[in-house]
Amino acid sequence: MVVVEFSIIPLGVGTSVSKFIAPALKEMEKRNIKYEVTSMCTIFEARSVKEALEVIAAAHEAVFKNRVNRIVTMIKIDDRRDKKISMKGKVRSLMSHLKKNRDECGD
Amino acid sequence: MVVVEFSIIPLGVGTSVSKFIAPALKEMEKRNIKYEVTSMCTIFEARSVKEALEVIAAAHEAVFKNRVNRIVTMIKIDDRRDKKISMKGKVRSLMSHLKKNRDECGD
Amino acid sequence: MVVVEFSIIPLGVGTSVSKFIAPALKEMEKRNIKYEVTSMCTIFEARSVKEALEVIAAAHEAVFKNRVNRIVTMIKIDDRRDKKISMKGKVRSLMSHLKKNRDECGD
Amino acid sequence: MVVVEFSIIPLGVGTSVSKFIAPALKEMEKRNIKYEVTSMCTIFEARSVKEALEVIAAAHEAVFKNRVNRIVTMIKIDDRRDKKISMKGKVRSLMSHLKKNRDECGD
Repeated sequence: MVVVEFSIIPLGVGTSVSKFIAPALKEMEKRNIKYEVTSMCTIFEARSVKEALEVIAAAHEAVFKNRVNRIVTMIKIDDRRDKKISMKGKVRSLMSHLKKNRDECGD
Repeated sequence: MVVVEFSIIPLGVGTSVSKFIAPALKEMEKRNIKYEVTSMCTIFEARSVKEALEVIAAAHEAVFKNRVNRIVTMIKIDDRRDKKISMKGKVRSLMSHLKKNRDECGD
Repeated sequence: MVVVEFSIIPLGVGTSVSKFIAPALKEMEKRNIKYEVTSMCTIFEARSVKEALEVIAAAHEAVFKNRVNRIVTMIKIDDRRDKKISMKGKVRSLMSHLKKNRDECGD
Repeated sequence: MVVVEFSIIPLGVGTSVSKFIAPALKEMEKRNIKYEVTSMCTIFEARSVKEALEVIAAAHEAVFKNRVNRIVTMIKIDDRRDKKISMKGKVRSLMSHLKKNRDECGD
């Protein structure tokens, strides 16, 4: 599994852009992709980089439908092959190490 | 307010890196910064870009303590001045537009 | 045309990573993609997002060949449809505006 | 030395944005920072992360002067401490490994 983050920025459509970004998420739902939305990006899991990038290409394309003429899309892929990774597993691992750090500091 | 995302990647310390990233979050807690951890990044709010970048510089520095010799840190800043933004507000806005998209499609 | 930037970070293979990144560029050359290398990223033009992402997926895959077990790949796509963009044209436009800024300031 | 890449995206000011980005570069010149402009980002060297982020904060702020109300700024920092890095040195190292790759493949 790969874990992937992306964000889509439409240019020249005003400073409120969520109306224009919503179709990207709609596109992911059409494809039955489970995703997590944050205030800065969308995150999802995929079986391969190829699959992940196809989903993002479709999401990116969906944003062009509403008279948007320029889009900057950012993508970050985490692809690990010596161990199975997942969105939940990555957060769990970080939190357990943070807990150890807190304990060591006597917090 | 600005909303800021960052991620810190330590190089050359193996493929499991959460142990090395945990001190960055510990540093944020010391400074009483409320943050959201996701599987791909950390997100927080700050009063200004200057304040946000000082926090990230300190988090970045904290990762060097455990014999880490190279770090790539990525930052994305969302700075809006015609309207107050927040992490919660941004997600709420996107979700309300997504709901409209779903309704229009008869879902 | 879309203009695309990407960078590939192999984890756990030491702090010197160019040996591991070189196969990504070799992969692009095999595909006759003209690219620009900078100290922080690789930039190229493609006819579509789909084409661009296929190239990057292949470059990303090429890096896994040398016993690399984890890779973080970042991508930024600039896709403009109201005007033809190019790597040269974008720099030229920015430089002409910078020149105006300098002139206005009496430099 | 750290090597730093950044890009500034003004939202809601049309699809042609170089006019709005030029003041960021003007700001760097005022501070005597040598930078490299590419079609996707600006790259420079700094003595520390702190210094680098101060420069970028100033560049980011400069873009707000021309009635821009929202900016997304992306930053990538490469901070290596077991060896001195530079923009030139990083490209040179990658190119020498790419040459070896080409030679091995009989190109």
